[in-house]
Amino acid sequence: MAPIMDVHELSNLLQQLGFRVVSLLDLTREEMLAAIDKFIQLLDRGVYGLFYYAGHGCERAGRNYLVAVDAPQPYEPENCVCVQRIMLKMQERRTALSVILLDACRKWYKQQCIPSCIMPLGPTGNTVYGYATCEDAEAFEVQDGGKSTGIFTKYLNEHILQSEKVTHVLERVSEDLGKDPLVTGKQVVEIKHTLKEPRSLADPVRTTGHTKELRLRDACWRQANELPQKKRLMFRCGVEVEVSFSALFSNVLMAFATVKTTGLRTQDCTVTLSSIPTLEDIFSGPGRSEEMDTLLFQKSDNPDCTLRLCALQKLKGSLVIKVDLHYTHMDSRLRQTESKQMDIGKPLVASCKLYKRNHAKKQEGASGRSVGNISDGKAAQLHQTPGGPRRPFTRKAECAAQPAAARGNEPEENDETEQQDFTFRH
Amino acid sequence: MAPIMDVHELSNLLQQLGFRVVSLLDLTREEMLAAIDKFIQLLDRGVYGLFYYAGHGCERAGRNYLVAVDAPQPYEPENCVCVQRIMLKMQERRTALSVILLDACRKWYKQQCIPSCIMPLGPTGNTVYGYATCEDAEAFEVQDGGKSTGIFTKYLNEHILQSEKVTHVLERVSEDLGKDPLVTGKQVVEIKHTLKEPRSLADPVRTTGHTKELRLRDACWRQANELPQKKRLMFRCGVEVEVSFSALFSNVLMAFATVKTTGLRTQDCTVTLSSIPTLEDIFSGPGRSEEMDTLLFQKSDNPDCTLRLCALQKLKGSLVIKVDLHYTHMDSRLRQTESKQMDIGKPLVASCKLYKRNHAKKQEGASGRSVGNISDGKAAQLHQTPGGPRRPFTRKAECAAQPAAARGNEPEENDETEQQDFTFRH
Repeated sequence: MAPIMDVHELSNLLQQLGFRVVSLLDLTREEMLAAIDKFIQLLDRGVYGLFYYAGHGCERAGRNYLVAVDAPQPYEPENCVCVQRIMLKMQERRTALSVILLDACRKWYKQQCIPSCIMPLGPTGNTVYGYATCEDAEAFEVQDGGKSTGIFTKYLNEHILQSEKVTHVLERVSEDLGKDPLVTGKQVVEIKHTLKEPRSLADPVRTTGHTKELRLRDACWRQANELPQKKRLMFRCGVEVEVSFSALFSNVLMAFATVKTTGLRTQDCTVTLSSIPTLEDIFSGPGRSEEMDTLLFQKSDNPDCTLRLCALQKLKGSLVIKVDLHYTHMDSRLRQTESKQMDIGKPLVASCKLYKRNHAKKQEGASGRSVGNISDGKAAQLHQTPGGPRRPFTRKAECAAQPAAARGNEPEENDETEQQDFTFRH
Repeated sequence: MAPIMDVHELSNLLQQLGFRVVSLLDLTREEMLAAIDKFIQLLDRGVYGLFYYAGHGCERAGRNYLVAVDAPQPYEPENCVCVQRIMLKMQERRTALSVILLDACRKWYKQQCIPSCIMPLGPTGNTVYGYATCEDAEAFEVQDGGKSTGIFTKYLNEHILQSEKVTHVLERVSEDLGKDPLVTGKQVVEIKHTLKEPRSLADPVRTTGHTKELRLRDACWRQANELPQKKRLMFRCGVEVEVSFSALFSNVLMAFATVKTTGLRTQDCTVTLSSIPTLEDIFSGPGRSEEMDTLLFQKSDNPDCTLRLCALQKLKGSLVIKVDLHYTHMDSRLRQTESKQMDIGKPLVASCKLYKRNHAKKQEGASGRSVGNISDGKAAQLHQTPGGPRRPFTRKAECAAQPAAARGNEPEENDETEQQDFTFRH
């Protein structure tokens, strides 16, 4: 069970700071790489970029690897995403600040193979890594009833709005986590950075002088957080049903149906929701479902029916919401069903076409310019994969750490598929 | 030419902060390892440890390597000292703060071999790396007339006395270096740390409650900075010569001779100094000699003769200073020479017997305890090897960067000789 609530909260906090946030739950490796490509394209000279990942990870020879939901065990090189390559790509966009935050384990794999070649960062500075834990150590979660909390992300959320240098925000997280008796001697925050200017995540965003190209790309990502309009559906029997929406992640949409007006001759109205095509419900597991309920409670006024629309990144066409109204006709006493459909197009991240990974194109940076501590834009991408049985838990009750099982194979980046996307610097 | 002045100044600044400093110039690999062993033995629970190195370095697979003066080119594994192993050893002493500062290049070696196994740090925090430059980049020196300055160390010296968190001191260095047009786009400071408590190099030192063992070890290192007493030598001819001493590094002693009283029947007195055994003068090169002169000017009141006693770490017995007085006897008009000898024992670091590397013994930590931001002691070791032709210079006039030549062989730590000194944690 991943600490969904925390990541959801982090997303809100980053939006308060002016970040254009895209948060993605449970991606496959191909989807992650596509999402990262899109994220990188949004970055530009002067922009502040932030990449956050919570889930399973590991480390070898100074490199961090993210494990996607479809990574078979034992891991093979092509199943991992190399963090250092993400930072390199961010830097190549000439960002004014590049931040990568990892709430993931960094257990070392045994080092019996030659590390494949990666390009080093250039000496231009303003890159910041915030690691939940140090080398060869685990990142813990506290499980408290139905809610699980990544300890690093919990403290991160407490401090991220501070208008001080991003490194100082991370130091506050480090000090708080350092005082937490649950992880004493088990987990310690590591901060690694080349911040040469006193940049803060709370720095103001320049709103003028953006290039057309940047505005276009920005629009695509703004769309990724735009909800379908709520709508009242009038059924022939006289019943009026409102369908409204809420986003939990950029790839998880909630649809709510509420009976607003009952007809003159109808009683015992109930509503069911379904979608065409049917999307998987990744929250059907016992733990996640409870977390979900908590969030639903926050998001809506006790609807008559809710539908979770997950994995929107897989959607290739329009999504249609089917509303089935069930009622008893007062005259006939018969239970009847009336249906209506509502086309909501490609909601949220579906609009970004992550299934279409563009291997060939290289994007050139637009000509923004950063002067002082004003960002030319802020973009954040949040990834969350299930820590599940792979990630150790610290339970408040017994505080038992369950280390991840050692695996035989080394994680390796897949040079063949990844390198073609690089914009080489020299 | 190494930036001797800066390292000398850093040594003074650290002493002002209460550090027991040992600074060592031009060590061979075996001498470096022996010095590091001694340094590690001085550390203990609650102590603040600081290791500084200026000279040639390189990086591979996330590890930094220090190149000793006797490292043949191309480098072989046994000629390099692995920085991460030093940090691990510091942590194993249960220090309250472990700082490693590297004013050295981090050019990457090609990664075509399997990195040998090193032990990871434990998740206990309060380790700080301050790198003059980022991955695969060079650390520059400014050469200004006879004086060469490591840019990182220059800014470090400007800020190190600040009584704020050590990470914030390093951030000031990073920001200053980031603004320096000489290294824009070439060098950027990297800070990597797990500082979980707000520790400062200026924190007060606890003066009570030290164990006997710690006091004994401490005494050995205090000795490493103790100068021989100055002495007046009375020659039979009536001339009085004062011999005094000054330490430039812990392994470089300066001896000064000054004629204090001329005899009644002597004139044209001159003095020459020599030592038994003869020690090499590593400052005889053209650039270093100039720097040396600047320092001498600071250290003494225009003596009649100076003698540089370098590489004291190689001294196995007592050092004898031979003072030859040359004068003209007023009656005979003959030029005469009278000699006196002065045994100064094992001055400075010679007292630490670095030539005797103790491979077998494991030291157990004493039972000091650190509460809050008070250190139970402070120990620093400064290493300086010649950057010489290996290290790129940035000249103020032409600002030309001369990259280090690429080398064929990979640096590797010599597991066989090093690992036996480890105190394994588990």
